[in-house]
Amino acid sequence: MNARRLTELSREEALELLRGVGLGRIVFTEDALPAIRPVNHLVDGDAVVIRSHTGAALTSSVNTVVAYEADDIDPKEHTGWSVIVTGIAREVTDPAAVERYKSLLRPWVDRHMDRVLRIHPTFVTGFTLTNGHPHGVR
Amino acid sequence: MNARRLTELSREEALELLRGVGLGRIVFTEDALPAIRPVNHLVDGDAVVIRSHTGAALTSSVNTVVAYEADDIDPKEHTGWSVIVTGIAREVTDPAAVERYKSLLRPWVDRHMDRVLRIHPTFVTGFTLTNGHPHGVR
Repeated sequence: MNARRLTELSREEALELLRGVGLGRIVFTEDALPAIRPVNHLVDGDAVVIRSHTGAALTSSVNTVVAYEADDIDPKEHTGWSVIVTGIAREVTDPAAVERYKSLLRPWVDRHMDRVLRIHPTFVTGFTLTNGHPHGVR
Repeated sequence: MNARRLTELSREEALELLRGVGLGRIVFTEDALPAIRPVNHLVDGDAVVIRSHTGAALTSSVNTVVAYEADDIDPKEHTGWSVIVTGIAREVTDPAAVERYKSLLRPWVDRHMDRVLRIHPTFVTGFTLTNGHPHGVR
């Protein structure tokens, strides 16, 4: 199989892809080590909203810089896309906003998710992997 | 849809799932910020092997602790699994090993991948998300 062509996405293209899926991975630091957890999300404006629970490792990421990644890459064809949002994770504390997010974003796992985090994107990057080499270059 | 049951995996169960897929995400620190890149991998014994190129951000992760995550979670059913390996990333320098890995692990993207990294797992964790609540608990 030929290698795939990697094309960078604009911020808006990347956020649009992120809005179209419900699952991603939050990347943070836990006890000075890199950590990652798959979670479900929604995109509200430009912000990525996720839920967590008190005691979860990722609540230590509140008020720190985190990355959030989602992708959809075909394991056979090796085509698809990946998007990465980097920004500060803030806890949502306004009760009306918390209730609204809790009604829109249902946790997938059977744990009591009492915290809502919102990632405000400072950087948004992404790429697509596509077939073909338009310039004939390997 | 009912929430899914989360069950932790043993180290060996987790590594077995990782061996069965070719794509994951390396998590590292770049300019003191959390960073993540989707890459393809192979598992050699307990070690996760990936390729990179000089100048790539992730080569800054050599000799540091990184995480490597792979998952397969159905976006509709919300069932599946996730595995996370945490350990030190070392550059493979032995020419015979480099050649062997390069022949076994083909980059997906059309970039010259001249470096081979091996992650030696210190921690291996993982979980499955399954249907049903055997104990009748929500």
